[in-house]
Amino acid sequence: MRENRPVIALDFPTLEDVKAFLAKFPADEKLYVKIGMELYYAAGPEIVRYVKELGHSVFLDLKLHDIPNTVKSAMRVLSNLGVDMTNVHAAGGVEMMKAAREGLGEGPILIAVTQLTSTSEEQMRDFQNIQTTLQESVVHYAQKTAEAGLNGVVCSAHEVAKIKEATNQDFVCLTPGIRPAGAAVGDQKRVMTPDDAHQIGSDYIVVGRPITQAEDPVAAYHDIKAQWNDQ
Amino acid sequence: MRENRPVIALDFPTLEDVKAFLAKFPADEKLYVKIGMELYYAAGPEIVRYVKELGHSVFLDLKLHDIPNTVKSAMRVLSNLGVDMTNVHAAGGVEMMKAAREGLGEGPILIAVTQLTSTSEEQMRDFQNIQTTLQESVVHYAQKTAEAGLNGVVCSAHEVAKIKEATNQDFVCLTPGIRPAGAAVGDQKRVMTPDDAHQIGSDYIVVGRPITQAEDPVAAYHDIKAQWNDQ
Repeated sequence: MRENRPVIALDFPTLEDVKAFLAKFPADEKLYVKIGMELYYAAGPEIVRYVKELGHSVFLDLKLHDIPNTVKSAMRVLSNLGVDMTNVHAAGGVEMMKAAREGLGEGPILIAVTQLTSTSEEQMRDFQNIQTTLQESVVHYAQKTAEAGLNGVVCSAHEVAKIKEATNQDFVCLTPGIRPAGAAVGDQKRVMTPDDAHQIGSDYIVVGRPITQAEDPVAAYHDIKAQWNDQ
Repeated sequence: MRENRPVIALDFPTLEDVKAFLAKFPADEKLYVKIGMELYYAAGPEIVRYVKELGHSVFLDLKLHDIPNTVKSAMRVLSNLGVDMTNVHAAGGVEMMKAAREGLGEGPILIAVTQLTSTSEEQMRDFQNIQTTLQESVVHYAQKTAEAGLNGVVCSAHEVAKIKEATNQDFVCLTPGIRPAGAAVGDQKRVMTPDDAHQIGSDYIVVGRPITQAEDPVAAYHDIKAQWNDQ
Protein backbone atom coordinates (compact mmCIF):
# COMPACT_ATOMS: atom_id res chain seq x y z
CA MET A 1 0.00 0.00 0.00
CA ARG A 2 2.90 2.36 -0.73
CA GLU A 3 2.14 5.93 -1.85
CA ASN A 4 4.73 7.18 -4.31
CA ARG A 5 3.86 10.85 -3.87
CA PRO A 6 5.54 12.50 -0.87
CA VAL A 7 2.75 14.01 1.25
CA ILE A 8 3.32 17.78 1.35
CA ALA A 9 2.66 19.33 4.77
CA LEU A 10 0.76 22.55 4.01
CA ASP A 11 2.12 24.39 7.03
CA PHE A 12 0.54 27.71 5.98
CA PRO A 13 -1.61 29.90 8.23
CA THR A 14 -4.31 30.81 5.67
CA LEU A 15 -6.33 29.50 2.72
CA GLU A 16 -4.88 32.33 0.60
CA ASP A 17 -1.34 31.10 1.24
CA VAL A 18 -2.40 27.57 0.22
CA LYS A 19 -4.02 28.82 -2.98
CA ALA A 20 -0.82 30.70 -3.91
CA PHE A 21 1.34 27.64 -3.18
CA LEU A 22 -0.82 25.11 -5.07
CA ALA A 23 -1.05 27.47 -8.07
CA LYS A 24 2.70 26.91 -8.61
CA PHE A 25 2.03 23.33 -9.66
CA PRO A 26 0.70 22.36 -13.09
CA ALA A 27 -3.05 21.72 -12.93
CA ASP A 28 -2.67 18.09 -13.96
CA GLU A 29 -0.21 17.36 -11.11
CA LYS A 30 -2.42 15.69 -8.50
CA LEU A 31 -0.69 15.99 -5.13
CA TYR A 32 -1.15 14.38 -1.71
CA VAL A 33 -1.22 17.13 0.89
CA LYS A 34 -1.43 17.25 4.68
CA ILE A 35 -3.61 19.82 6.44
CA GLY A 36 -2.83 20.30 10.12
CA MET A 37 -4.44 21.93 13.15
CA GLU A 38 -3.27 25.51 12.51
CA LEU A 39 -4.66 25.69 8.98
CA TYR A 40 -7.84 23.72 9.68
CA TYR A 41 -8.66 25.68 12.86
CA ALA A 42 -8.17 28.95 10.94
CA ALA A 43 -9.86 28.11 7.63
CA GLY A 44 -12.34 25.43 8.66
CA PRO A 45 -13.81 22.79 6.33
CA GLU A 46 -13.59 25.12 3.32
CA ILE A 47 -9.85 24.39 3.01
CA VAL A 48 -10.51 20.64 2.53
CA ARG A 49 -13.27 21.28 0.01
CA TYR A 50 -11.00 23.65 -1.95
CA VAL A 51 -8.10 21.16 -2.12
CA LYS A 52 -10.39 18.22 -2.97
CA GLU A 53 -12.06 20.18 -5.77
CA LEU A 54 -8.59 20.62 -7.36
CA GLY A 55 -8.33 16.83 -7.42
CA HIS A 56 -5.66 16.47 -4.72
CA SER A 57 -5.69 13.87 -1.93
CA VAL A 58 -5.96 15.11 1.65
CA PHE A 59 -4.46 13.81 4.90
CA LEU A 60 -6.25 15.76 7.65
CA ASP A 61 -3.83 15.61 10.56
CA LEU A 62 -5.89 16.57 13.63
CA LYS A 63 -4.79 13.70 15.96
CA LEU A 64 -8.18 13.21 17.62
CA HIS A 65 -7.99 12.14 21.29
CA ASP A 66 -11.30 12.33 23.18
CA ILE A 67 -14.06 10.07 24.55
CA PRO A 68 -15.36 7.46 22.06
CA ASN A 69 -18.72 9.15 21.30
CA THR A 70 -17.10 12.49 20.57
CA VAL A 71 -14.47 10.93 18.29
CA LYS A 72 -17.13 8.94 16.40
CA SER A 73 -19.27 12.02 15.64
CA ALA A 74 -16.23 14.16 14.80
CA MET A 75 -14.99 11.48 12.38
CA ARG A 76 -18.40 11.43 10.69
CA VAL A 77 -17.89 15.12 9.90
CA LEU A 78 -14.42 14.44 8.41
CA SER A 79 -15.80 11.55 6.38
CA ASN A 80 -18.49 13.79 4.88
CA LEU A 81 -15.71 16.20 3.89
CA GLY A 82 -14.12 13.45 1.77
CA VAL A 83 -10.74 13.27 3.52
CA ASP A 84 -8.47 10.47 2.20
CA MET A 85 -6.61 9.92 5.46
CA THR A 86 -6.90 11.11 9.06
CA ASN A 87 -5.56 10.14 12.47
CA VAL A 88 -6.17 9.63 16.19
CA HIS A 89 -3.96 9.08 19.26
CA ALA A 90 -3.60 5.36 20.09
CA ALA A 91 -3.43 6.40 23.77
CA GLY A 92 -7.18 7.05 23.54
CA GLY A 93 -7.72 3.27 23.67
CA VAL A 94 -9.17 0.48 21.51
CA GLU A 95 -12.77 1.56 22.24
CA MET A 96 -12.00 5.10 21.00
CA MET A 97 -10.14 3.81 17.91
CA LYS A 98 -13.04 1.50 16.99
CA ALA A 99 -15.44 4.44 17.42
CA ALA A 100 -13.19 6.48 15.11
CA ARG A 101 -13.36 3.80 12.43
CA GLU A 102 -17.13 3.55 12.82
CA GLY A 103 -17.57 7.29 12.40
CA LEU A 104 -15.13 7.58 9.49
CA GLY A 105 -16.39 4.52 7.60
CA GLU A 106 -14.23 2.04 5.66
CA GLY A 107 -13.09 4.24 2.77
CA PRO A 108 -10.53 6.69 4.19
CA ILE A 109 -7.21 5.53 5.66
CA LEU A 110 -7.20 5.80 9.46
CA ILE A 111 -3.89 5.79 11.30
CA ALA A 112 -2.88 6.33 14.91
CA VAL A 113 -0.14 8.32 16.58
CA THR A 114 1.78 6.05 18.96
CA GLN A 115 4.29 8.40 20.62
CA LEU A 116 4.76 11.84 19.06
CA THR A 117 8.02 11.98 17.13
CA SER A 118 8.93 14.97 19.35
CA THR A 119 8.73 12.73 22.47
CA SER A 120 12.03 11.45 23.90
CA GLU A 121 12.33 8.24 25.98
CA GLU A 122 13.22 10.28 29.07
CA GLN A 123 10.07 12.39 28.71
CA MET A 124 7.95 9.26 28.16
CA ARG A 125 9.26 7.73 31.42
CA ASP A 126 9.29 10.85 33.63
CA PHE A 127 6.23 12.50 32.24
CA GLN A 128 3.88 9.80 31.05
CA ASN A 129 5.12 7.40 33.73
CA ILE A 130 5.50 4.59 31.14
CA GLN A 131 8.39 2.45 32.37
CA THR A 132 9.28 0.68 29.11
CA THR A 133 11.62 1.71 26.31
CA LEU A 134 10.25 4.16 23.76
CA GLN A 135 10.35 1.47 21.09
CA GLU A 136 8.45 -0.99 23.29
CA SER A 137 5.74 1.64 23.86
CA VAL A 138 5.53 2.43 20.13
CA VAL A 139 5.28 -1.26 19.16
CA HIS A 140 2.73 -1.89 21.95
CA TYR A 141 0.51 0.95 20.68
CA ALA A 142 0.99 -0.24 17.06
CA GLN A 143 -0.25 -3.72 17.97
CA LYS A 144 -3.29 -2.29 19.78
CA THR A 145 -3.96 -0.07 16.74
CA ALA A 146 -3.92 -3.11 14.46
CA GLU A 147 -6.23 -4.95 16.91
CA ALA A 148 -8.65 -1.99 16.73
CA GLY A 149 -8.84 -2.41 12.97
CA LEU A 150 -7.00 0.74 11.90
CA ASN A 151 -4.82 0.87 8.79
CA GLY A 152 -1.54 1.85 10.39
CA VAL A 153 0.43 4.34 12.45
CA VAL A 154 2.43 7.54 12.30
CA CYS A 155 5.95 6.60 13.32
CA SER A 156 9.58 7.48 12.90
CA ALA A 157 11.24 5.49 10.11
CA HIS A 158 13.57 3.95 12.72
CA GLU A 159 10.55 2.08 14.08
CA VAL A 160 9.06 0.74 10.82
CA ALA A 161 10.77 -2.66 10.78
CA LYS A 162 9.83 -3.53 14.39
CA ILE A 163 6.26 -2.35 13.83
CA LYS A 164 5.78 -4.39 10.66
CA GLU A 165 7.28 -7.40 12.42
CA ALA A 166 4.82 -6.98 15.35
CA THR A 167 1.78 -6.43 13.07
CA ASN A 168 1.93 -7.31 9.34
CA GLN A 169 3.59 -6.11 6.14
CA ASP A 170 0.43 -4.34 4.95
CA PHE A 171 0.21 -2.29 8.16
CA VAL A 172 0.71 1.32 6.99
CA CYS A 173 3.70 3.23 8.38
CA LEU A 174 3.57 6.98 7.69
CA THR A 175 6.79 8.81 8.51
CA PRO A 176 6.70 12.56 9.18
CA GLY A 177 9.64 14.94 9.48
CA ILE A 178 11.44 13.68 6.35
CA ARG A 179 14.20 16.02 5.25
CA PRO A 180 16.69 15.73 2.41
CA ALA A 181 20.27 15.36 3.72
CA GLY A 182 21.51 18.67 5.23
CA ALA A 183 18.11 20.28 5.93
CA ALA A 184 17.31 21.85 9.42
CA VAL A 185 15.99 19.41 12.15
CA GLY A 186 13.19 21.65 13.61
CA ASP A 187 11.43 20.04 16.67
CA GLN A 188 11.39 16.47 15.42
CA LYS A 189 13.77 14.48 17.66
CA ARG A 190 14.02 11.49 15.26
CA VAL A 191 14.43 12.63 11.52
CA MET A 192 15.37 10.81 8.24
CA THR A 193 15.93 11.34 4.44
CA PRO A 194 13.51 10.15 1.72
CA ASP A 195 15.97 7.58 0.53
CA ASP A 196 16.53 6.17 4.03
CA ALA A 197 12.77 5.99 4.61
CA HIS A 198 12.38 4.06 1.36
CA GLN A 199 15.11 1.58 2.33
CA ILE A 200 13.57 1.06 5.77
CA GLY A 201 10.08 0.36 4.37
CA SER A 202 7.93 3.41 5.19
CA ASP A 203 4.71 3.47 3.13
CA TYR A 204 4.12 7.23 3.23
CA ILE A 205 6.48 10.10 3.89
CA VAL A 206 5.53 13.63 4.91
CA VAL A 207 7.71 16.55 3.83
CA GLY A 208 7.08 20.15 4.88
CA ARG A 209 9.46 23.11 4.75
CA PRO A 210 12.02 21.48 2.38
CA ILE A 211 9.24 21.79 -0.28
CA THR A 212 6.95 24.61 0.92
CA GLN A 213 9.85 26.99 1.65
CA ALA A 214 12.06 25.99 -1.30
CA GLU A 215 13.06 28.57 -3.89
CA ASP A 216 11.35 26.37 -6.47
CA PRO A 217 8.81 24.16 -4.67
CA VAL A 218 7.86 22.21 -7.83
CA ALA A 219 11.50 21.26 -8.48
CA ALA A 220 12.05 20.43 -4.80
CA TYR A 221 8.91 18.25 -4.86
CA HIS A 222 10.08 16.31 -7.90
CA ASP A 223 13.58 15.94 -6.50
CA ILE A 224 12.26 14.50 -3.23
CA LYS A 225 9.74 12.35 -5.09
CA ALA A 226 12.62 10.87 -7.13
CA GLN A 227 14.65 10.14 -3.98
CA TRP A 228 11.58 8.57 -2.33
CA ASN A 229 11.02 6.34 -5.37
CA ASP A 230 14.75 5.58 -5.85
CA GLN A 231 14.84 6.99 -9.37
CA MET B 1 -11.99 31.34 40.40
CA ARG B 2 -15.40 29.60 40.48
CA GLU B 3 -17.75 30.06 37.53
CA ASN B 4 -21.38 30.11 38.68
CA ARG B 5 -22.82 29.42 35.21
CA PRO B 6 -22.90 25.73 34.28
CA VAL B 7 -21.02 25.40 30.97
CA ILE B 8 -23.49 24.10 28.40
CA ALA B 9 -22.01 21.50 26.02
CA LEU B 10 -23.37 22.45 22.59
CA ASP B 11 -23.38 18.88 21.31
CA PHE B 12 -25.13 19.83 18.05
CA PRO B 13 -23.93 18.86 14.57
CA THR B 14 -24.56 22.23 12.85
CA LEU B 15 -24.47 26.01 13.31
CA GLU B 16 -28.20 26.11 12.49
CA ASP B 17 -28.98 23.79 15.41
CA VAL B 18 -26.92 26.03 17.71
CA LYS B 19 -28.74 29.16 16.50
CA ALA B 20 -32.11 27.53 17.18
CA PHE B 21 -31.02 26.41 20.65
CA LEU B 22 -29.49 29.73 21.74
CA ALA B 23 -32.57 31.61 20.46
CA LYS B 24 -34.59 29.91 23.25
CA PHE B 25 -32.73 31.98 25.83
CA PRO B 26 -33.50 35.64 26.57
CA ALA B 27 -31.02 37.91 24.78
CA ASP B 28 -29.70 39.31 28.05
CA GLU B 29 -28.85 35.86 29.43
CA LYS B 30 -25.10 35.55 28.79
CA LEU B 31 -24.19 31.89 28.84
CA TYR B 32 -20.94 29.92 29.02
CA VAL B 33 -20.95 27.31 26.27
CA LYS B 34 -18.63 24.50 25.20
CA ILE B 35 -17.94 23.83 21.52
CA GLY B 36 -16.42 20.44 20.80
CA MET B 37 -14.72 18.67 17.89
CA GLU B 38 -17.86 17.62 15.99
CA LEU B 39 -19.33 21.11 15.82
CA TYR B 40 -16.06 22.93 15.26
CA TYR B 41 -14.87 20.52 12.56
CA ALA B 42 -18.22 20.92 10.78
CA ALA B 43 -18.80 24.67 11.16
CA GLY B 44 -15.26 26.00 11.49
CA PRO B 45 -14.31 29.28 13.17
CA GLU B 46 -17.61 30.91 12.19
CA ILE B 47 -19.37 29.10 15.06
CA VAL B 48 -17.07 30.75 17.64
CA ARG B 49 -17.48 34.19 16.08
CA TYR B 50 -21.30 33.78 16.06
CA VAL B 51 -21.47 32.76 19.74
CA LYS B 52 -19.01 35.46 20.83
CA GLU B 53 -20.97 38.15 18.97
CA LEU B 54 -24.04 37.20 21.06
CA GLY B 55 -21.97 38.00 24.14
CA HIS B 56 -21.57 34.42 25.40
CA SER B 57 -18.33 32.92 26.75
CA VAL B 58 -16.77 30.03 24.82
CA PHE B 59 -14.83 26.96 25.98
CA LEU B 60 -13.38 25.45 22.78
CA ASP B 61 -12.84 21.81 23.70
CA LEU B 62 -10.45 20.46 21.03
CA LYS B 63 -7.95 18.69 23.36
CA LEU B 64 -4.84 19.56 21.33
CA HIS B 65 -2.13 16.89 21.43
CA ASP B 66 0.68 17.37 18.88
CA ILE B 67 4.32 18.48 18.65
CA PRO B 68 5.08 21.79 20.44
CA ASN B 69 5.41 23.96 17.32
CA THR B 70 2.11 22.78 15.88
CA VAL B 71 0.26 23.33 19.16
CA LYS B 72 1.73 26.85 19.52
CA SER B 73 0.60 27.96 16.05
CA ALA B 74 -2.79 26.29 16.41
CA MET B 75 -3.32 28.04 19.76
CA ARG B 76 -2.50 31.40 18.15
CA VAL B 77 -5.43 30.80 15.80
CA LEU B 78 -7.76 30.04 18.74
CA SER B 79 -6.53 33.11 20.60
CA ASN B 80 -7.33 35.33 17.60
CA LEU B 81 -10.85 33.87 17.65
CA GLY B 82 -11.33 35.20 21.18
CA VAL B 83 -11.99 31.89 22.96
CA ASP B 84 -12.35 32.22 26.75
CA MET B 85 -11.03 28.74 27.56
CA THR B 86 -9.44 25.87 25.66
CA ASN B 87 -7.53 22.68 26.43
CA VAL B 88 -4.65 20.31 25.62
CA HIS B 89 -3.68 16.78 26.67
CA ALA B 90 -1.16 16.81 29.56
CA ALA B 91 0.35 13.62 28.02
CA GLY B 92 1.82 15.89 25.32
CA GLY B 93 4.43 17.01 27.86
CA VAL B 94 5.56 20.19 29.64
CA GLU B 95 7.30 21.52 26.49
CA MET B 96 4.03 21.17 24.51
CA MET B 97 1.94 22.75 27.30
CA LYS B 98 4.33 25.73 27.56
CA ALA B 99 4.13 26.12 23.77
CA ALA B 100 0.31 26.08 24.06
CA ARG B 101 0.38 28.88 26.64
CA GLU B 102 2.80 30.88 24.48
CA GLY B 103 0.56 30.58 21.43
CA LEU B 104 -2.66 31.28 23.34
CA GLY B 105 -1.31 34.21 25.36
CA GLU B 106 -2.14 35.00 29.00
CA GLY B 107 -5.80 36.01 28.67
CA PRO B 108 -7.78 32.81 28.00
CA ILE B 109 -7.99 29.99 30.54
CA LEU B 110 -5.87 27.01 29.47
CA ILE B 111 -6.53 23.63 31.05
CA ALA B 112 -5.24 20.11 30.42
CA VAL B 113 -6.87 16.72 30.16
CA THR B 114 -5.11 14.28 32.51
CA GLN B 115 -6.86 10.96 31.82
CA LEU B 116 -10.10 11.07 29.81
CA THR B 117 -13.08 10.58 32.09
CA SER B 118 -14.02 7.60 29.86
CA THR B 119 -10.70 5.86 30.74
CA SER B 120 -10.84 3.11 33.35
CA GLU B 121 -7.86 2.10 35.54
CA GLU B 122 -7.69 -1.29 33.81
CA GLN B 123 -7.48 0.37 30.39
CA MET B 124 -4.80 2.79 31.64
CA ARG B 125 -2.66 -0.13 32.87
CA ASP B 126 -3.20 -2.58 29.98
CA PHE B 127 -3.38 -0.07 27.21
CA GLN B 128 -1.22 2.88 28.14
CA ASN B 129 1.15 0.66 30.13
CA ILE B 130 1.06 3.08 33.09
CA GLN B 131 1.54 0.92 36.19
CA THR B 132 0.14 3.31 38.81
CA THR B 133 -3.41 3.82 40.07
CA LEU B 134 -5.67 6.03 37.93
CA GLN B 135 -5.73 8.66 40.67
CA GLU B 136 -1.91 8.69 40.91
CA SER B 137 -1.68 9.23 37.14
CA VAL B 138 -4.28 12.03 37.25
CA VAL B 139 -2.53 13.81 40.16
CA HIS B 140 0.87 13.34 38.50
CA TYR B 141 -0.38 14.95 35.29
CA ALA B 142 -2.10 17.73 37.27
CA GLN B 143 1.17 18.61 39.01
CA LYS B 144 3.03 18.68 35.69
CA THR B 145 0.25 20.89 34.26
CA ALA B 146 0.66 23.34 37.14
CA GLU B 147 4.45 23.28 36.61
CA ALA B 148 3.90 24.14 32.93
CA GLY B 149 1.99 27.24 34.00
CA LEU B 150 -1.51 26.23 32.91
CA ASN B 151 -4.63 27.28 34.84
CA GLY B 152 -6.00 23.86 35.69
CA VAL B 153 -7.31 20.50 34.48
CA VAL B 154 -10.36 18.68 33.26
CA CYS B 155 -11.08 16.01 35.85
CA SER B 156 -13.82 13.95 37.43
CA ALA B 157 -15.19 15.59 40.59
CA HIS B 158 -13.94 12.55 42.58
CA GLU B 159 -10.39 13.77 41.90
CA VAL B 160 -10.77 17.47 42.79
CA ALA B 161 -9.68 17.28 46.44
CA LYS B 162 -6.50 15.28 45.71
CA ILE B 163 -5.63 17.57 42.78
CA LYS B 164 -6.05 20.77 44.78
CA GLU B 165 -4.00 19.25 47.60
CA ALA B 166 -1.18 18.36 45.14
CA THR B 167 -1.26 21.78 43.41
CA ASN B 168 -3.07 24.76 45.03
CA GLN B 169 -6.56 25.96 45.84
CA ASP B 170 -6.65 28.32 42.85
CA PHE B 171 -5.82 25.51 40.42
CA VAL B 172 -8.94 25.25 38.21
CA CYS B 173 -10.83 21.95 38.19
CA LEU B 174 -13.41 21.66 35.41
CA THR B 175 -15.73 18.68 35.74
CA PRO B 176 -17.52 17.31 32.65
CA GLY B 177 -20.31 14.75 32.49
CA ILE B 178 -22.40 16.37 35.24
CA ARG B 179 -25.94 15.00 35.35
CA PRO B 180 -28.81 15.76 37.70
CA ALA B 181 -29.74 12.70 39.82
CA GLY B 182 -31.46 10.00 37.66
CA ALA B 183 -30.15 11.12 34.22
CA ALA B 184 -28.56 8.55 31.75
CA VAL B 185 -24.76 7.83 32.23
CA GLY B 186 -23.70 7.83 28.52
CA ASP B 187 -19.98 6.95 28.03
CA GLN B 188 -18.60 8.77 31.03
CA LYS B 189 -17.31 6.12 33.46
CA ARG B 190 -17.13 8.51 36.46
CA VAL B 191 -20.30 10.86 36.65
CA MET B 192 -21.67 13.25 39.36
CA THR B 193 -24.59 15.71 40.17
CA PRO B 194 -24.21 19.53 40.23
CA ASP B 195 -24.71 19.59 43.96
CA ASP B 196 -22.07 16.90 44.60
CA ALA B 197 -19.59 18.74 42.35
CA HIS B 198 -20.22 21.93 44.34
CA GLN B 199 -19.60 20.17 47.66
CA ILE B 200 -16.42 18.57 46.37
CA GLY B 201 -14.97 21.89 45.14
CA SER B 202 -15.15 21.81 41.32
CA ASP B 203 -14.68 25.29 39.82
CA TYR B 204 -16.53 24.68 36.54
CA ILE B 205 -19.12 22.08 35.60
CA VAL B 206 -20.08 21.03 32.09
CA VAL B 207 -23.62 19.85 31.39
CA GLY B 208 -24.81 18.58 28.01
CA ARG B 209 -27.92 16.55 27.19
CA PRO B 210 -29.74 17.21 30.50
CA ILE B 211 -30.03 20.85 29.22
CA THR B 212 -29.76 20.62 25.41
CA GLN B 213 -32.29 17.78 25.15
CA ALA B 214 -34.65 18.96 27.89
CA GLU B 215 -38.30 19.73 27.11
CA ASP B 216 -37.62 23.24 28.34
CA PRO B 217 -33.86 23.90 28.13
CA VAL B 218 -34.09 27.35 29.78
CA ALA B 219 -35.86 25.92 32.83
CA ALA B 220 -33.46 22.96 32.96
CA TYR B 221 -30.51 25.39 32.77
CA HIS B 222 -31.83 27.50 35.65
CA ASP B 223 -32.63 24.43 37.71
CA ILE B 224 -29.10 23.04 37.30
CA LYS B 225 -27.59 26.49 37.87
CA ALA B 226 -29.46 26.69 41.18
CA GLN B 227 -28.24 23.23 42.24
CA TRP B 228 -24.70 24.17 41.24
CA ASN B 229 -24.86 27.35 43.31
CA ASP B 230 -26.70 25.66 46.22
CA GLN B 231 -29.72 27.97 46.01
